[in-house]
Amino acid sequence: MASKTLSTAPKAARMGVRPLQCLRKSPVHAHRRGIAAYGYEQAKALTFKDYGDPPAVLSLHSHSISPPHGDLMTLRFLASPINPADINQIQGVYPSKPTFTTSLSTPNPIAVAGNEGVAEIIALGSKPKEAGFKKGDWVIMNGPGFGTWRTHAAARVEDVVKLDDAMREGISAVQAGTVSINPCTAYRMLRDFVDLKEGDFFIQNGANSGVGRAAIQLGRQWGLKSINVIRGRDDKAAEDKLKTELKEMGADIVITDAELQSQGIRDMAKEWTNGGRAPIRLALNCVNGKAATAMAKLLASETHFVTYGAMSKQPLTIPASMLIFKDIHFHGFWVSRWAQRHPEEKKKTVADVLEMTRRGMFTDTPMDKITWEWETKGEELIGKVKDTLDGYREGKGVFVFGKT
Amino acid sequence: MASKTLSTAPKAARMGVRPLQCLRKSPVHAHRRGIAAYGYEQAKALTFKDYGDPPAVLSLHSHSISPPHGDLMTLRFLASPINPADINQIQGVYPSKPTFTTSLSTPNPIAVAGNEGVAEIIALGSKPKEAGFKKGDWVIMNGPGFGTWRTHAAARVEDVVKLDDAMREGISAVQAGTVSINPCTAYRMLRDFVDLKEGDFFIQNGANSGVGRAAIQLGRQWGLKSINVIRGRDDKAAEDKLKTELKEMGADIVITDAELQSQGIRDMAKEWTNGGRAPIRLALNCVNGKAATAMAKLLASETHFVTYGAMSKQPLTIPASMLIFKDIHFHGFWVSRWAQRHPEEKKKTVADVLEMTRRGMFTDTPMDKITWEWETKGEELIGKVKDTLDGYREGKGVFVFGKT
Repeated sequence: MASKTLSTAPKAARMGVRPLQCLRKSPVHAHRRGIAAYGYEQAKALTFKDYGDPPAVLSLHSHSISPPHGDLMTLRFLASPINPADINQIQGVYPSKPTFTTSLSTPNPIAVAGNEGVAEIIALGSKPKEAGFKKGDWVIMNGPGFGTWRTHAAARVEDVVKLDDAMREGISAVQAGTVSINPCTAYRMLRDFVDLKEGDFFIQNGANSGVGRAAIQLGRQWGLKSINVIRGRDDKAAEDKLKTELKEMGADIVITDAELQSQGIRDMAKEWTNGGRAPIRLALNCVNGKAATAMAKLLASETHFVTYGAMSKQPLTIPASMLIFKDIHFHGFWVSRWAQRHPEEKKKTVADVLEMTRRGMFTDTPMDKITWEWETKGEELIGKVKDTLDGYREGKGVFVFGKT
Repeated sequence: MASKTLSTAPKAARMGVRPLQCLRKSPVHAHRRGIAAYGYEQAKALTFKDYGDPPAVLSLHSHSISPPHGDLMTLRFLASPINPADINQIQGVYPSKPTFTTSLSTPNPIAVAGNEGVAEIIALGSKPKEAGFKKGDWVIMNGPGFGTWRTHAAARVEDVVKLDDAMREGISAVQAGTVSINPCTAYRMLRDFVDLKEGDFFIQNGANSGVGRAAIQLGRQWGLKSINVIRGRDDKAAEDKLKTELKEMGADIVITDAELQSQGIRDMAKEWTNGGRAPIRLALNCVNGKAATAMAKLLASETHFVTYGAMSKQPLTIPASMLIFKDIHFHGFWVSRWAQRHPEEKKKTVADVLEMTRRGMFTDTPMDKITWEWETKGEELIGKVKDTLDGYREGKGVFVFGKT
C-alpha cells in the first residue's frame, strides 16, 4: 500500500518501482499525433488507481512509451489471460501488490492490471541486446505485478523470460501466454512434495480448472493415476459430458463433490486403489472447507496435502488425528513465490510444458478469447473482466491483441 | 478390535499376541500358595476387558507368571506413569490398541493398561541372556501397548530397551520410567522439522505440560528462545508463580492464552523477536482450536507448525493464506510411530535426556507419586486414575511400586 503514495519518479525508483520514461516532462509530449515518427509507441492499458470491485475501479488508459534506449525494451502484448489472482489483486486482497506509478503520464499513481501474458519485443536498447534479446523475440513475465492487460509496455531484462525459437516453435500466443501459472502450478505440485511412483494415485478437487486439467494430463504423462472431484451440476447430461471429457484427457476417476462426501466413498476408494496397494499419496486442493477435509480423509498415511486456492472462501479444517496419527502433512503452493525462488527451474518447467504442448500431449484449457484491438472500447474489455468475476464464462478468459 | 475375540492361545499367537504361559492348563495351577518355590511369580495388574470410562472398566486382576525359560524374562515394575494417551487407550479412542489376551488366566481376553514405565529384570531365560540381559537390569518399553500398570510381567527381548549401567547411573526409577514419551516428544519436535539456529524462537502452547517443560529446558540447552503459552488462571498469584517457575526453567516469554489472542500480540511478538530478526520458526501445539490458529499467526513465513495433541478437542483451522502465501507447513508428531520407525534414534534420544538429567540440566516434571504396594486396593489405584481423568492433579500421576 505504501507505493500508492508515490508521486515522483525518483522516489518511485527508490521503492523498486519500474521507472518507465516519464512523458510529462518530455518536450514532444504535447505533440502526440506526430510522435510515432520519433519511435514513440502509443499504448492502452487497463489500469486502476484504488483497490476495489474491478468494474468500478478499472479504466482504459492511453499513454505513450518513449523510444527504448539503455536498459529498456518495448513490448507489444500478444495474449494475456484473466486469472482469479488478477481479480483478487485489483480487489486488494492478493499479497503480491501491483506497482502504482505516475510514469504512465497521470497526475496520480496508477497500476496496470494482469499478471500473466506473452509479448513480442518491437524495439530495444543496448542492454537487452547485449543480454541476447532481439526484435521479434517472444517473452513471458518473470514474476507477478508487471501489468499484462495492456497493448504495449516498456520492460527491463529482469522483468521477462525469453522463449527461444525452439521453445516457441509450433506454439500459439495463447498457449505461450497461459503457460506460466496454471500448468506450472500443477507441474510443481505433482513433483515437489512427494516422490510419486508410477501407479500411485493423487486426488484433486477443482479438477475442471486450468490447474486441474493440467494435473490430469501431466499425471497421465508420468504414469500417475488420478481421482478428480468436480462440482456437481443440476444438468446431469452436462455433468456426464464433463466427466467424459476429463476421462478422455487422462482422468482415471471423476466424481462430484457430493459423491466425495457420500457414505460409500471409503469403500469406493478402496476398490479404485486395489485395497490401498496403489496408495493415494498426494492431494491437491483449491476449494477448502468440508470438501477439502473429505478429500484428506481418503489419503494414505504419511502423505501430503497441498492447498493452492480456496474457492469456497472457507478455511481448511483438520482433525488432530489426521495430523498426529495419520501423519498427513499440509502445505501450500504459490507459483509466484516458487518462480521467484527458482528462476532456472521455472524456465525448465515452461520449456517442458511447451514441449508437451507441441507434441500434442497437453490439450489447451477451454479459452474464451477476448479480442482487444486498438479501437476496442474500455467498457467492452471491463465487461469481460466482470464476466469472469461473475462466473459467466465456462472457459478461461484471455485477451488476444490484434492490430495494436 | 479383532483381538478382543481371541479365546485360545494358538490363535492369540497367530495374531501377534504375546503368548505368556497359560496357567489354566498347568498342573501346579491348583496349588497357588506353594508355587513361589517353583519360580512362579505372583502378579497384579490394572486390566480391562471392554473399552470405556476408566473407573467403570478397570479392575485389579491377580495372576501368576510361570518361570521364564527360552525367550522370556520376568519383569518387576518400578515406576509407570499415567499419561493422557493411556486414558484414551482405555476409552478405545487411541489408534494404538492394547493386546487383549487370555494368557493372564482369565476365561475371556483382557488387556493390561498403561504404555510407559521402567522395570527390573528379576529372572530370565536363555535367549535374553544371550542378548546381553542380566538379572537386575533396568528396561523401558520398546513401544506402546505392552501394559505397564502391573507389578510384574513376562516379556521378550523385543518388547524392551535396556538401560545400561552408564545410562542408569544417578537416575531414579521415576526419571527412567517417564523418559520415553514426554521428553522424547519435545526433543524430536525441536529437532526433526526445521534446523533451528541458535537464537531462533519457537512458540508452544500447553507450556506447563510434561512435553512443554521438556521443550523449554531442551531449548535452553540448545540456545533456542521460547514463547510459552499457558492457560490463564483465576488466581493471578498462582498464574504469576507458574510464569516465574517456567522462566526459571529457561522460558524466555510466558503468556496466557488470553494474552496470545489479544489485540497487541503482533506488536509484542515484534518486540520479542527484534522486529523478526530472531524469527519464530517452529510452533508446537497440543491444544488446537482458535488458540492454535492464533499461535500460527505469529510464525514467520516458510516455517513449521507441529501438532501433538488437541486438549481443546477442537480441530485445527487454517486460513488458506497461511498455507499459500505464508508457506507454513503443518505436521503432526506421534512419539510411538517415531520410536517404531527409528529404534536406534530412540535409544540415543533417551540416553541424551538421561545424561542431561544426570547433569541437573533437566528438572523433573512435578509428579504425584502413587504408591502401589502388594496390599494396595484396586479401588484406590483406580481412584487415582480417575483423578487424572478429572484433572484433579497438578503434577503428573505415576505409579511407584514398593514391596511388590
